Amino acid sequence: MSSRGKGRKRSAEAGHFAYTGLDRVLHEKARLGILTALITRPDGILFNDLKELCSLTDGNLSRHVQVLLEAELVEVWKGYEGRRPQTLVRLSATGRRQFVAYLEELEQVIRDAKPATRAAAQRSKSFKAPPGWMPA
Amino acid sequence: MSSRGKGRKRSAEAGHFAYTGLDRVLHEKARLGILTALITRPDGILFNDLKELCSLTDGNLSRHVQVLLEAELVEVWKGYEGRRPQTLVRLSATGRRQFVAYLEELEQVIRDAKPATRAAAQRSKSFKAPPGWMPA
Repeated sequence: MSSRGKGRKRSAEAGHFAYTGLDRVLHEKARLGILTALITRPDGILFNDLKELCSLTDGNLSRHVQVLLEAELVEVWKGYEGRRPQTLVRLSATGRRQFVAYLEELEQVIRDAKPATRAAAQRSKSFKAPPGWMPA
Repeated sequence: MSSRGKGRKRSAEAGHFAYTGLDRVLHEKARLGILTALITRPDGILFNDLKELCSLTDGNLSRHVQVLLEAELVEVWKGYEGRRPQTLVRLSATGRRQFVAYLEELEQVIRDAKPATRAAAQRSKSFKAPPGWMPA
């Protein structure tokens, strides 16, 4: 009789690794980069500069800014620099609040994972599957 | 004449917020949870326990484990606990290395974003768009 499958101890931590705070709108890799750039510039970033900072194409940046705009996480302003039409993207107050909350969940992931990285390196060498277990 | 659009200073940081180390296989929210759970248990986690820890359905966990298996980030072992067939999921050596590298990039995101969160809170109240600029 093994107690391994009963999961009593596991049950106590049910959902611990669900990270529900990692909202997909903010977590998507390109949008995470855009939001990180924007939080460092409270007055906003011109579309073309943002494109460079995040290594995105026009089309990709437009698409992601649209998603962020629909979620009300950013504001988009239109204006002119000299005679050239420009677009300014800026984190909204809602965006800032939600991104700060998202970053706290991200820090929780690191707090959960980081201390385990050294132990994992040591244990992985000594792993033996239980007798009779086979790779799938 | 405004120097804002010229982006000389910006260019120096081109790609800074691209976070190319955030590999989509590892970054996807559910898989990030699975990998974080697995790194805390170097001997692996039974499928049903992992399902609970990550609040995933059978189908979702199967699908994500399959993606991780194809990327050689996890090993899957089959065996019995008593008479019940069981599946054990375990981080591979490759998975551990790649996840540790991923976590380093994630820490870079936090280092970039975190110091800006307080400044952003103060500046957002005093933001005025340049004269003539309009919300899109």
